[in-house]
Amino acid sequence: MAHHDFTPDHYHTTIGWHDPVLEIDSGDTVATTTVDARGRDQTGERVTPRGNPMTGPFFVRGAEEGDTLIVHLEELTPNRPWGWTGGQVAANVLEPGFTPEFHDNPKPQFDDDARPSFRWNVDLEAGTVQLATGDGPMTRTPIALDPMVGCFGVGPAGGQAISTATSSTHGGNMDYRGFRQGTQVQFPVFAPGALFHLGDGHATQGDGEIVGTGVEISFAVRFKVELIKGRRIGWPRALDDTWMMAVGNARPLDQCVQHATTEMLSWLTSEEIGLDSRTAHHLLGQCVEYDLGNVFDPAYTMVCKIRRDQVDALRDA
Amino acid sequence: MAHHDFTPDHYHTTIGWHDPVLEIDSGDTVATTTVDARGRDQTGERVTPRGNPMTGPFFVRGAEEGDTLIVHLEELTPNRPWGWTGGQVAANVLEPGFTPEFHDNPKPQFDDDARPSFRWNVDLEAGTVQLATGDGPMTRTPIALDPMVGCFGVGPAGGQAISTATSSTHGGNMDYRGFRQGTQVQFPVFAPGALFHLGDGHATQGDGEIVGTGVEISFAVRFKVELIKGRRIGWPRALDDTWMMAVGNARPLDQCVQHATTEMLSWLTSEEIGLDSRTAHHLLGQCVEYDLGNVFDPAYTMVCKIRRDQVDALRDA
Amino acid sequence: MAHHDFTPDHYHTTIGWHDPVLEIDSGDTVATTTVDARGRDQTGERVTPRGNPMTGPFFVRGAEEGDTLIVHLEELTPNRPWGWTGGQVAANVLEPGFTPEFHDNPKPQFDDDARPSFRWNVDLEAGTVQLATGDGPMTRTPIALDPMVGCFGVGPAGGQAISTATSSTHGGNMDYRGFRQGTQVQFPVFAPGALFHLGDGHATQGDGEIVGTGVEISFAVRFKVELIKGRRIGWPRALDDTWMMAVGNARPLDQCVQHATTEMLSWLTSEEIGLDSRTAHHLLGQCVEYDLGNVFDPAYTMVCKIRRDQVDALRDA
Amino acid sequence: MAHHDFTPDHYHTTIGWHDPVLEIDSGDTVATTTVDARGRDQTGERVTPRGNPMTGPFFVRGAEEGDTLIVHLEELTPNRPWGWTGGQVAANVLEPGFTPEFHDNPKPQFDDDARPSFRWNVDLEAGTVQLATGDGPMTRTPIALDPMVGCFGVGPAGGQAISTATSSTHGGNMDYRGFRQGTQVQFPVFAPGALFHLGDGHATQGDGEIVGTGVEISFAVRFKVELIKGRRIGWPRALDDTWMMAVGNARPLDQCVQHATTEMLSWLTSEEIGLDSRTAHHLLGQCVEYDLGNVFDPAYTMVCKIRRDQVDALRDA
Repeated sequence: MAHHDFTPDHYHTTIGWHDPVLEIDSGDTVATTTVDARGRDQTGERVTPRGNPMTGPFFVRGAEEGDTLIVHLEELTPNRPWGWTGGQVAANVLEPGFTPEFHDNPKPQFDDDARPSFRWNVDLEAGTVQLATGDGPMTRTPIALDPMVGCFGVGPAGGQAISTATSSTHGGNMDYRGFRQGTQVQFPVFAPGALFHLGDGHATQGDGEIVGTGVEISFAVRFKVELIKGRRIGWPRALDDTWMMAVGNARPLDQCVQHATTEMLSWLTSEEIGLDSRTAHHLLGQCVEYDLGNVFDPAYTMVCKIRRDQVDALRDA
Repeated sequence: MAHHDFTPDHYHTTIGWHDPVLEIDSGDTVATTTVDARGRDQTGERVTPRGNPMTGPFFVRGAEEGDTLIVHLEELTPNRPWGWTGGQVAANVLEPGFTPEFHDNPKPQFDDDARPSFRWNVDLEAGTVQLATGDGPMTRTPIALDPMVGCFGVGPAGGQAISTATSSTHGGNMDYRGFRQGTQVQFPVFAPGALFHLGDGHATQGDGEIVGTGVEISFAVRFKVELIKGRRIGWPRALDDTWMMAVGNARPLDQCVQHATTEMLSWLTSEEIGLDSRTAHHLLGQCVEYDLGNVFDPAYTMVCKIRRDQVDALRDA
Repeated sequence: MAHHDFTPDHYHTTIGWHDPVLEIDSGDTVATTTVDARGRDQTGERVTPRGNPMTGPFFVRGAEEGDTLIVHLEELTPNRPWGWTGGQVAANVLEPGFTPEFHDNPKPQFDDDARPSFRWNVDLEAGTVQLATGDGPMTRTPIALDPMVGCFGVGPAGGQAISTATSSTHGGNMDYRGFRQGTQVQFPVFAPGALFHLGDGHATQGDGEIVGTGVEISFAVRFKVELIKGRRIGWPRALDDTWMMAVGNARPLDQCVQHATTEMLSWLTSEEIGLDSRTAHHLLGQCVEYDLGNVFDPAYTMVCKIRRDQVDALRDA
Repeated sequence: MAHHDFTPDHYHTTIGWHDPVLEIDSGDTVATTTVDARGRDQTGERVTPRGNPMTGPFFVRGAEEGDTLIVHLEELTPNRPWGWTGGQVAANVLEPGFTPEFHDNPKPQFDDDARPSFRWNVDLEAGTVQLATGDGPMTRTPIALDPMVGCFGVGPAGGQAISTATSSTHGGNMDYRGFRQGTQVQFPVFAPGALFHLGDGHATQGDGEIVGTGVEISFAVRFKVELIKGRRIGWPRALDDTWMMAVGNARPLDQCVQHATTEMLSWLTSEEIGLDSRTAHHLLGQCVEYDLGNVFDPAYTMVCKIRRDQVDALRDA
């Protein structure tokens, strides 16, 4: 149950079976930092190439294929006072041929802007995020700070190294708003040591990351790992105070729903939870909810969720 | 602003350009009843063939193509003390080839049960719904009553008559939990008189209607119609106290997202709301939420929604 | 086995349970004409509103739900010397956000051109189709005449009236190049009398109808109907000299593949054909081919096909 | 223009930036062998773990990101007299919930059979493939030998290592029947040296690889590489005597169509081919064909193709 302070000196834009940056044990806590999606750190300096650079991987001793790695997101704190976003809903999220028109003339924020990007001020004390580019009404109307991690996961199956632009059973670029401080996320382990990576922090984000970004920012993070030996799961799962969540990453969204729902049924009827199959089907039928993760990236994300108190009531009934 | 009490004596299992059952004016209120998805009324008697039979259509004087019909769902009350559900998550919602096993032996509730159906007690006073078939833990664990209308809409484009099993721009079988009492729903008008139909009440339902049913029940309903001349919309929209909602009905879900998001952008930048295009994109990018309607029927449903207070703040900023 | 010459005086832009224009018997032949997709006849005059107007419906005596109607396409002959096309691959067929640029300045051909349309000369004797608009290389390079029917089908299930823009189990706007002269097409019967409609002839067309049209033209047609009592099929099927074909109409194309393949397995293992299930799976596994119908309209089309001589060899083996 | 005989001693089940097994120059020819999808070589012995093991990668000197690598498939010859297949159409290719029944009782061929597999005799001289398991009619009815390569490609973008179960812009497990002897295939180069891998030979296969396999077999192969410096392409392309082909790999198939069609438009209007945009759209609109590659694996494949003689005629017109 050691604590590790880790300062990254390099990053990865794939999640893969890379050389670990640190070996830790189940129960350990790590405090570290992440750079933003374009490789800029808390000073705003670009320290690594763009594309959701990951801090890590962290090697969890004893983890091997067939286990489950639980990552407790104990702290997710923006560590600089500004982030940036895209400013246009992506073409794949709009009807084919619909081309929005804009009447402002935004200036590039970065030398690698393909489309214009927009600067937002992030005020931790006030708990707000506010547009700082242009002079439209968004610059006068703060929205709520709600930090979340966009991309994180473990070394994928079969020795793959998968771009941090996308997602699969190992996690990856899911951009789900539910991955916020206080949530625990469970990953299937494929690689020796699990090889946990994380990065791509957002100060806030709408469902779907439909402009291709949240408010992209660097983070100070602290997480605790917990290894469950011999528990094989199919897809990332998560728990917060209210919800059990199962994640499906694929295209189209219909397939995400299939993965997430099947995973949730497996969870509810597992030894861990212990509902009988009919009860699990009734419960989902009348009480399930679904959230939308990313609909911007090569694989989309849907989350199937059910209230923990409802599950607990059924276990006790 | 008349009030009409209407007692149906026949029903339709398509939403089409059928002979109206009643002519009403913009501002009028109608109190009527709907039968359940299998055509059973408040006494439990089958009064019409199964398949989401619709009450209506109601002809709104003056409505013509290019207008918008607003339907205020003033009352949606189950009018009998029981409903029924399917009890198995549908195959199209699960991974291909995944076949759940069940260890109970449920008896058919109805003579036309293809798969077993399950009876639920509905207690209006307690505000609960509780499984009454079998002896599993769901029979000892009530869930919350949350009545909603599964299928409703207006005469479709071009004189079509579309099965109440599916949905499109005219509305139809959307099975969205947000269509509850107190919500106003806006439909594009295609047919002279708009031709509003409704039915398929649910005492409650999970997202996606993934067992193929909510708790299917007959309703006493009261609705008010309001006609907006010359406002052409593309897809159903809705308002409740908190949310602006735009609906997309299609397959796959990706296409629902495209329709719903495009419709929401059109709404936000319309004369009615008046945001500039960049503000609308920023707002959706960082604050949009999506809900899942039906993923059981031939066309699926996604809802794009944004908080009304955020929109109002931007209009005032 | 009567022959009927039928001259249409009205058309439908839905396929539905409309009043029949003619009653015929199984074995009868009908010679008639169809107008083009915009309602223009052999003289080029607009005689009915645009949108794939259908000739019919033809009522086949004795046909009822659960039967199969076979339509032999005995003759499909363009009856005027010109057709027209769109000139731009549709946005839904291209990567989101890809916007092609054109350097010509085509003139509208019709007063209802939303986008420019293009005129093509059709030479029955030479067997060619040749662009007549502009002066590009296509105007100097004839392509082969290959007439086919874009939209045809029977009254849909449950009394629906479905737009001729789309397709489903009843047939409809499938735009499949295999529906040419000499092919027999089988439809599931849903309505009393089957209610056969046809129209939307193309002088030629690429797979997918990706510019939204083939070479749209009016036709002289002759077809023979054959009624198979008590044979229930799920989707349109077809036979030509070489192929057995099963059609799936839906979105996304993945679902078309599912419908078409399931229908083909049902056919191969039916009493009519009589293969055992394993043989049918092996045969499809190593020998199946798929063709693409429409990817332009609300429902897409895929065709699963297998060589008749291979099936015959297995039945004899 | 050297010739290399290469005998593999290890294989990869990802296509990635692995250490090259051989360095070659543009113009060189390589003769080598591939094992079957389960790692069995020409003797039938398992020499490497299952999962489409790849021979390679071959490093092409001078290749770098932004180039195109052309691979001429000069010889694809099964080098043992038997292959094997699955025997059941995959669940994802059939309607949800459709479960085929079989009345034979096939024995496993291999110790790692999850489902039964089936043995086929391959006769190079006769040019036939014939089922050797069971006693059904397929065992008495040979089908045509038509060797093709199921999985091949180059090191993917951004240093990824992608499972040989799937496919993307780098190629991969496309299972397209058009990748047969005599075809040249063009890949976008992402990695230094291009890093060409190949394997997964099929003695024959139906469209879609719908039983999850072709007739899986080991190959003797000979290929020639050709490097086109500075030609950046987006997706694999191919040429045979008749066709220009552009490949899209994704899910759903609709997205494959989008990638393949956009790539074909880019090709036709490139400096290499030189058609104007309008001509390219007309040509595809009326003459394009589409073929189906894999619909079994995580990413599906569609091929957009056009006749070379038609393109040549337009360039000369």
